[in-house]
Amino acid sequence: MLSKSQTKLITSLQQKKYREETGLFVAEGPKVIHELLDGGLALHLLFSTVGFEITHKNNLQVTEAELKKLSFLKTANTAVAVFEIPKIKLLRDEGLIIALDAVRDPGNLGTIIRLCDWFGVKQIICSEDTADCYNPKVVQATMGSLARVQVHYLSLMEYLSRTNLPIFGGAMNGKNVYSEKLPATGILVMGNEANGISEEIIQKITHKITIPRYGNIQKTESLNVATATAILLSEFRRTTGT
Amino acid sequence: MLSKSQTKLITSLQQKKYREETGLFVAEGPKVIHELLDGGLALHLLFSTVGFEITHKNNLQVTEAELKKLSFLKTANTAVAVFEIPKIKLLRDEGLIIALDAVRDPGNLGTIIRLCDWFGVKQIICSEDTADCYNPKVVQATMGSLARVQVHYLSLMEYLSRTNLPIFGGAMNGKNVYSEKLPATGILVMGNEANGISEEIIQKITHKITIPRYGNIQKTESLNVATATAILLSEFRRTTGT
Repeated sequence: MLSKSQTKLITSLQQKKYREETGLFVAEGPKVIHELLDGGLALHLLFSTVGFEITHKNNLQVTEAELKKLSFLKTANTAVAVFEIPKIKLLRDEGLIIALDAVRDPGNLGTIIRLCDWFGVKQIICSEDTADCYNPKVVQATMGSLARVQVHYLSLMEYLSRTNLPIFGGAMNGKNVYSEKLPATGILVMGNEANGISEEIIQKITHKITIPRYGNIQKTESLNVATATAILLSEFRRTTGT
Repeated sequence: MLSKSQTKLITSLQQKKYREETGLFVAEGPKVIHELLDGGLALHLLFSTVGFEITHKNNLQVTEAELKKLSFLKTANTAVAVFEIPKIKLLRDEGLIIALDAVRDPGNLGTIIRLCDWFGVKQIICSEDTADCYNPKVVQATMGSLARVQVHYLSLMEYLSRTNLPIFGGAMNGKNVYSEKLPATGILVMGNEANGISEEIIQKITHKITIPRYGNIQKTESLNVATATAILLSEFRRTTGT
């Protein structure tokens, strides 16, 4: 039986304010829950229907109707879990680091985290106005990759001002990424969905890079931030092979 | 003043059945409407609020509240347009062609159309169970690219059985795309979100290609179909330069 306070807890965790207060976040579905457990995240509560494959001391069996009330998804899954937000490791100036300047769409952030996981990028830096990575929509879009990629929120301007790493930025007027020499260690900055990288941050970019356009020139809208990140990450890995 | 029949028309166009019956589809917002007009699509009706920049003989001025009723978006825009579905040109065996095998998510299809536009791919072939490109969610996600890319719906199996073009497929167990020789003319098949390319279609693939993984191996979920398409299209263009 689901208590009122449990329902209230889950609902409140849709809001960043309550996630910060409680240090908890919600994940749904066997795949994501499995991956987060495998990644060593601490399970706080698990609500699941009969036959769900994971058993846990904090497991509460619920009916499908009860689960549906807890779910943020259109089609409710077989389980809803509450995890503790993990302590973040110290940020290290090593390897390829992705920095996000005001990426607002949770789906885009989730896709970028999943891409970082695929391409072995261990650290993402987000400006404070980037979407929160524990937003339920982001958690679902990452498909569990969140357990393997460290996401840091900080003042991007401050960070970029004090680093000695080369700073690459995905921009419309940069050099052709296919012919640039890309390093194994450095920062790649990607910008906001509508406005790209902000005026302030663009000053800190040491290497502007662009994905060449083969289509109908002027008429073509810019690439979406998640697909542009996919292509640029692929280029960094292809050319450095690490 | 908005009539009941006009409201009913727009609402009905959310469904594929009515789009097929009427030969019409809906697009919203100045950017998308502009691009579709520029692409030569025929405007059937335009509902806009005061001050909207496009004027047209079939323009009907509405209030913001009326527009909100017509809009499919969470945040209603300044205009909603009804366009005629354009007649599709004959499919030609030339250039790079993207073939989609049961891509179901409208957002993914929209992103792929936009990517094709960027990379100068003029023709997309969709299996009959792929999302409809005139679905309002797809139309919005394309950002107007729909006017510049031909989308054909047909039996993918039949098409692939009779073509002489090389058939590439994005798969998990293919050859490293970074070291494959990619042609300027050929077909690239991308599969369904959950199941990849179907058993039947995979038999027709002459070259399976894979994006190498640099992350934590087994644990990592496959790439999303739209981001994988982004990377593969970039590789085709980078290596052939056309």
